[in-house]
Amino acid sequence: MKRTVFLLIAWLLPAFVMAQRALVLQTDFGTKDGAVAAMKGVAFGVSPALPVFDLTHEIPPYNIWEAAYRLYQTATYWPAGTVFVSVIDPGVGSHRKSVVLLTKSGHYFVTPDNGTLTLIAAHLGIQALREIDESRNRLPGSGNSYTFHGRDVYAYTGARLAAGKITFDSVGPRLPDSVVTIQYQKAHVRNNKAFGNIPILDVQYGNVWTNISEKELTALGIRYGDRIKISIYYENLFKYQQAIPFVTTFSEVQPGFPLAYYNSLLQLSFAVNEDSFSEKYQIGSGPGWRVEIEKFK
Amino acid sequence: MKRTVFLLIAWLLPAFVMAQRALVLQTDFGTKDGAVAAMKGVAFGVSPALPVFDLTHEIPPYNIWEAAYRLYQTATYWPAGTVFVSVIDPGVGSHRKSVVLLTKSGHYFVTPDNGTLTLIAAHLGIQALREIDESRNRLPGSGNSYTFHGRDVYAYTGARLAAGKITFDSVGPRLPDSVVTIQYQKAHVRNNKAFGNIPILDVQYGNVWTNISEKELTALGIRYGDRIKISIYYENLFKYQQAIPFVTTFSEVQPGFPLAYYNSLLQLSFAVNEDSFSEKYQIGSGPGWRVEIEKFK
Amino acid sequence: MKRTVFLLIAWLLPAFVMAQRALVLQTDFGTKDGAVAAMKGVAFGVSPALPVFDLTHEIPPYNIWEAAYRLYQTATYWPAGTVFVSVIDPGVGSHRKSVVLLTKSGHYFVTPDNGTLTLIAAHLGIQALREIDESRNRLPGSGNSYTFHGRDVYAYTGARLAAGKITFDSVGPRLPDSVVTIQYQKAHVRNNKAFGNIPILDVQYGNVWTNISEKELTALGIRYGDRIKISIYYENLFKYQQAIPFVTTFSEVQPGFPLAYYNSLLQLSFAVNEDSFSEKYQIGSGPGWRVEIEKFK
Repeated sequence: MKRTVFLLIAWLLPAFVMAQRALVLQTDFGTKDGAVAAMKGVAFGVSPALPVFDLTHEIPPYNIWEAAYRLYQTATYWPAGTVFVSVIDPGVGSHRKSVVLLTKSGHYFVTPDNGTLTLIAAHLGIQALREIDESRNRLPGSGNSYTFHGRDVYAYTGARLAAGKITFDSVGPRLPDSVVTIQYQKAHVRNNKAFGNIPILDVQYGNVWTNISEKELTALGIRYGDRIKISIYYENLFKYQQAIPFVTTFSEVQPGFPLAYYNSLLQLSFAVNEDSFSEKYQIGSGPGWRVEIEKFK
Repeated sequence: MKRTVFLLIAWLLPAFVMAQRALVLQTDFGTKDGAVAAMKGVAFGVSPALPVFDLTHEIPPYNIWEAAYRLYQTATYWPAGTVFVSVIDPGVGSHRKSVVLLTKSGHYFVTPDNGTLTLIAAHLGIQALREIDESRNRLPGSGNSYTFHGRDVYAYTGARLAAGKITFDSVGPRLPDSVVTIQYQKAHVRNNKAFGNIPILDVQYGNVWTNISEKELTALGIRYGDRIKISIYYENLFKYQQAIPFVTTFSEVQPGFPLAYYNSLLQLSFAVNEDSFSEKYQIGSGPGWRVEIEKFK
Repeated sequence: MKRTVFLLIAWLLPAFVMAQRALVLQTDFGTKDGAVAAMKGVAFGVSPALPVFDLTHEIPPYNIWEAAYRLYQTATYWPAGTVFVSVIDPGVGSHRKSVVLLTKSGHYFVTPDNGTLTLIAAHLGIQALREIDESRNRLPGSGNSYTFHGRDVYAYTGARLAAGKITFDSVGPRLPDSVVTIQYQKAHVRNNKAFGNIPILDVQYGNVWTNISEKELTALGIRYGDRIKISIYYENLFKYQQAIPFVTTFSEVQPGFPLAYYNSLLQLSFAVNEDSFSEKYQIGSGPGWRVEIEKFK
């Protein structure tokens, strides 16, 4: 009798304790075909109890920068232990490494090491990086010829890691604590100006997000109610300059007028009330887009 | 031994009994960025065993009416106890209240009270309405500045309610049994005519749905095989008039010809066989679109 | 005490053992409205522990061929026992049968028998086919009038089958081992040429997939590094002819140049490095698209 209960507990525990980890998938595959469903099938085959979620599958094809940003934008809202699989892989078949990054925050990222980890590594820190040993970590029977890495290596390895079927150590050999990074303007202050990057647009509404946060604004003495002079550049081309009010809610300015605010990541952003800042002023985003701000007097 | 079994049961029971409630998410965020994934991360952090589903994230931006309709269209196909979180929130930062509605049918709706509850309240009835007390029901650490309410308040509160971490009572203070509503033409019969609204289009196929149901058609003596004279207006502008057959299957009319039928909610709808009624006759939907019908003799 | 434990086990077991089966949904409904969410609500009502996944809901409206392909592309990446529900149903209301197919591989497919099963039946084999008896297998209360079969019959039956609430035998009467099929060019070799079909495009990247596999290429003596002469036809119209290199990675040819490779299903496919083959050469897909290949000397 005791033995029965013990076995029952031993059998149920993994499903409750280990499967508490989620698998979160990101790709540029879209959802019109079966690629994502094949990845989920592989994950389900690894462990039917594994909770599987989508980050997004609508990363623009091959846009590694946006992949990097979406991981950065969402990862910390998931518990430590969550396993993210990100497959934006223009170099499939070339010499990029397949890796798993464990951050200091305790999150796992399974991905080609092609720049996808740029922002995660910078903001969450590298606890350890391992190269996926495909001789051990590949969907059985998938190695005949061309491999769909997203399905056969990344989803398979991510699912096994999340479900506790393998440990982080058994992913493969440890690499130096360094990932491939994309260069961009990091946020900093110099001579009463803050410099930063426009990593992304809030696509649904046309708002423009920067990587400048409260720290830099405080250093410049900028407070709600002030005007901020902003200058936007793409590479070295001048694109936009204006002094706009820094507000807490869009309705503090008239419809059609620009404003500055903190977005949901508490970073300085620009919008036009009831319109699209990015369309109205032709502003894009990515590693090449830069912004300079100063207090307007 | 008994104690072990008791603890095991006590520990497993909530996951099986309480987590039988689903969390169903609706937004106008789209799925291109990380906003929905951040909401799901918060929900997963509340309870890894919570089943999380999407209603849709493609509500047209700020379209509260369509949000109201999608809840009405789907809620009753989910069991009582299901918690819906709907975030279409053009007034974020303004004075709309954040509420949880418990309907007489036993479903929960977590949303800004901005008209989103119009159709749910009318059709499922208000059992009780509570305002979310953000001092207790907000993601810890999210209150520094601007808040992403969908993530920090609505997803967090909805997940805690669905997972049984809080009771409905602890959402916050009770409000009067009344929600903000959008005006529209309710279905009724007068002088051998039925009057109603065109709440929505069946977007994928271009069919036009009304809120007129069997009750009104019976009152007019309309049966399958009859012709119905329909007149469509937008506000007070005449848009379309025709006598069309009332059929059970589209193939009863020639391709390219209009017909009337019952949709999947058993409400009178209009289609063109193998074509789009809404495109062909330029018919839209929303609170301002009205229809009059009578039996054609 | 023993009884308690026994009951606990009896109660928990089905959730762990039976719910190991997934329900995978495919439709042409899109995700803008509530149709898919209503189907999921019905499935959740059948069993809250049932894992529900999406294959895709973006099958082009009424495109039975593409529905057939997506099932074929993904099914084998899911474990035996998985229940697929596919609702692309231009003939709703007409005389097509509602069936459940059990393949020799142990997968279930719940669908109108309208051609959707063409490729699954050919590749996975028919173990048994049953017609859904709607007198027993229909959402209670849904039979008043017009029925949304996807929700009331297919999702409901698929969920009950996946959750173990009904057996395959109780779906309804057994039918002959034969499904409705769409004609297409099966892959074969004759006179040093291989003939095949272009079933689908890799829509995200514009690549062109065929149903010709290693077997046919080996018969023609074609190896990596060879050039393949390909000719593409739509019905009897000539569309494209070129001799292109057969490579393992896209980067073996210059950007803008065409190439042949094995796709993720190990079938011969055509691409343009860093461009879209299908757009550049105006190539489509479907049962009417044919390809002929031979070794180029």
